[in-house]
Amino acid sequence: MARVYDVIVLGGGPVGINAADRAHAEGLSVALVERELVGGECNFWGCVPSKSLLRPVLAVAEARKVDGAREAVVGAIDAKGVFARRDRYVTNWDDAPVADVVLGMGVDLVRGHARLDGARRLVVTTAERRLELHARHAVIVCTGSTAAVPDLPGVAEAKPWTNRRATDSSTVPARLAVVGAGGVGVEMATAWHGLGSRVTLLARTAGLLPRMESFLGEHVHRGLVEAGVEVRTEVLVTELQRPGGTGPIQVTLDTGERLEVDEILFATGRTPNTADIGLETVGLAPGSWLDVDDTCMARGVEGDWLYALGDVNHQALLTHQGKYQARIAGAVIGARANGLALDSDPWSAHVATANDLAIPQAFFTDPEAASVGLTSAQATQRGHRVRTVDVDMGQSVPGANFYADGYTGQARMVVDEDDQTLLGVSFVGPGVVEMLHSATVAVAGRVPIARLWHAVPCFPTISEVWLRLLEAYRDGAPAG
Amino acid sequence: MARVYDVIVLGGGPVGINAADRAHAEGLSVALVERELVGGECNFWGCVPSKSLLRPVLAVAEARKVDGAREAVVGAIDAKGVFARRDRYVTNWDDAPVADVVLGMGVDLVRGHARLDGARRLVVTTAERRLELHARHAVIVCTGSTAAVPDLPGVAEAKPWTNRRATDSSTVPARLAVVGAGGVGVEMATAWHGLGSRVTLLARTAGLLPRMESFLGEHVHRGLVEAGVEVRTEVLVTELQRPGGTGPIQVTLDTGERLEVDEILFATGRTPNTADIGLETVGLAPGSWLDVDDTCMARGVEGDWLYALGDVNHQALLTHQGKYQARIAGAVIGARANGLALDSDPWSAHVATANDLAIPQAFFTDPEAASVGLTSAQATQRGHRVRTVDVDMGQSVPGANFYADGYTGQARMVVDEDDQTLLGVSFVGPGVVEMLHSATVAVAGRVPIARLWHAVPCFPTISEVWLRLLEAYRDGAPAG
Repeated sequence: MARVYDVIVLGGGPVGINAADRAHAEGLSVALVERELVGGECNFWGCVPSKSLLRPVLAVAEARKVDGAREAVVGAIDAKGVFARRDRYVTNWDDAPVADVVLGMGVDLVRGHARLDGARRLVVTTAERRLELHARHAVIVCTGSTAAVPDLPGVAEAKPWTNRRATDSSTVPARLAVVGAGGVGVEMATAWHGLGSRVTLLARTAGLLPRMESFLGEHVHRGLVEAGVEVRTEVLVTELQRPGGTGPIQVTLDTGERLEVDEILFATGRTPNTADIGLETVGLAPGSWLDVDDTCMARGVEGDWLYALGDVNHQALLTHQGKYQARIAGAVIGARANGLALDSDPWSAHVATANDLAIPQAFFTDPEAASVGLTSAQATQRGHRVRTVDVDMGQSVPGANFYADGYTGQARMVVDEDDQTLLGVSFVGPGVVEMLHSATVAVAGRVPIARLWHAVPCFPTISEVWLRLLEAYRDGAPAG
Repeated sequence: MARVYDVIVLGGGPVGINAADRAHAEGLSVALVERELVGGECNFWGCVPSKSLLRPVLAVAEARKVDGAREAVVGAIDAKGVFARRDRYVTNWDDAPVADVVLGMGVDLVRGHARLDGARRLVVTTAERRLELHARHAVIVCTGSTAAVPDLPGVAEAKPWTNRRATDSSTVPARLAVVGAGGVGVEMATAWHGLGSRVTLLARTAGLLPRMESFLGEHVHRGLVEAGVEVRTEVLVTELQRPGGTGPIQVTLDTGERLEVDEILFATGRTPNTADIGLETVGLAPGSWLDVDDTCMARGVEGDWLYALGDVNHQALLTHQGKYQARIAGAVIGARANGLALDSDPWSAHVATANDLAIPQAFFTDPEAASVGLTSAQATQRGHRVRTVDVDMGQSVPGANFYADGYTGQARMVVDEDDQTLLGVSFVGPGVVEMLHSATVAVAGRVPIARLWHAVPCFPTISEVWLRLLEAYRDGAPAG
């Protein structure tokens, strides 16, 4: 008495919803299984609440950078108002509106915990029932990830925050330690400092945003310090003490120092939500990241039916990249189900070209930071013959200064000398987040340098940094 | 005893400076002649001061759009602070810093009024001297334009503002009439309203920004009204009265209505600065716009030596487009001077492809507006088989709402159905100005729709409007 669908999607976050939508658009019957909230981590404890919290902080910071505007910003940010807007954007952690969207797509929504039970078979359990689902064509795993909290002495009693409490709290801790130098760490340090916490950022690495071009982290570091955040790099937390699980937390560092805070946030990486989804029944290791090919099909499983999208495939733990994979996988599954050959052209809808070529990432910090494609180090490592050019945005872009007096920012372009296209572009500075897509179009579209000269940036926008990058490339020495 | 140069540039605004720089970079000797301030209208009475004035107004307006940030903006904009930043960016109308840049390029700077005196010959006059200049290869006219003030009864005595007073005034008129619905009109209405004037915008046309897609003007109109600007469309000013040239101005409209204001700004078009540059000595009509080919060489002159860039060629009265033409003309003149064939490939450095294909324009209003390439009407008129898709940004782009609560904005993409590239893109809404370059790269780079699907916009940026545009195109009906 199993229910049979063409496609079954495990995990109802943005990735799963997009995958379900695209598969359904291919004329396939689809069930989406979610064990918690439809909309997932991103909608309720990720980008949505974090950007809701960050924008008021950044809007005020931006106005304060402008002479004549600064004088208007004499009040304080209203934390209650910020929490209210956050609550509105997460619809008070009620997933009914998102669930309605899914139902409106013509996709069946199944609530419960799904586990694989051999090829194309799933068992969904809730407290009340056990349901068998069979997939004719494909099962798509997009169960996401969970914050990884290090196993430190005292950690349980310390009740540390992860991304969940950092985005759903409506009280501002007087003193907050943020552990981790990646995107979540620097963004949440920015948000909670802006909302009134005294924030200490504790980074294991020497630089912040360690996966990016190093100047991004340097600028963000300086911005945090200037705002009043204490930033400690190359330190490890070795022990926590919070007797009885309430009151202040004593944080011990590997330097022997101690720090007293009211809450501690761990933003120290993610674990895939694959430990309890029956991977062992199809020959894969429970708890592992799932390796996929460029159609997003999982490797190591017979029969071309298992796909893994979003965080679980570990290619890029970013909602937008997971949604991109969902579009690709939906089209691929549709083609295979309909007996059509896959189009192997890298610009076809069947190849996740951008997974390799052009992953974009934006950090809503002060200053903002954004990057797409390969860093100069990655490009060299991959064997490209590259030339890298840098531009000081404050020094050379008038529009940057009109935007923020005393603008400081930097841009970098990594050029493939052989085919004269861009492998990567990074920006840091106020207002750069919405500039990123110009770089993404150039990198993903493989627009040659010669054509980019005909893409005229408006005077006096910050985007004129593109002229400076092109000039620096034209006038610089070719790569050795 | 004439001085001889390879290239002589008439007009030391940004366009002339860029042309001189590029010609010099081609190994040519260059003189730049300027009769007023080196840096030109743009630097001293155009984009530079106007954007210096506008940014504080927009930064405060943006913070007020965000719950929790709004509460911090309890003061007023400090007009004195705004004027001080403007004065700093125009270096107090002292052109020495810009002149130093020109000299640092290795370009000779000649001050005075230059007039053509037959082919390749110029006479420069100042109060003290008369100097003859001969050009071996090229003369480049980039003398710009001047505000055209209509010849109305009473206009002289009314001492109306043009872009000059509108950008260099350090007093805020209590009541200001702005005549004109183009970029200068809507931007200056925004700036002076923000600085404290009671502004009435008087437009001859039915809609604002009449050369753009109509929805841009509709949104800007609504924004101005919501801010408190009175907007009157389809009205003409017929008479001004300001007895003795001081005190309030009585403005009579063609409706018979009268309006009393303290200053009136005419932003009603531009006249080319070509009336007194000796065009008659080379067979061209003084005071006319100069027609050019796609290398920016003036038509109607024998011998391939006269170029016209920037406002005077009437292709686009925009600093950035003039600078683009300067890059093209510099390379063209260098090639011709060195006896090299011109490269006719549209992506070469010798063809001003973007003049026809991809002129970008940004309006620093509230909401911001920006556009590149052809409008849907222009595209159809030119015979393209087009399909136009629209997206309501407030309704469909989460990142837009995180940016500004209750976001209203719209985007339009005009697609060439035959080659599946973009002919034009327009945006209106808070924060769209820096998004424009993503469209410019797509339009100027002729990136096909299929590739744009691999350019992933970050969640949750406003740039995710690109996904909505692509989806709308994918899901819509093909053009009849």
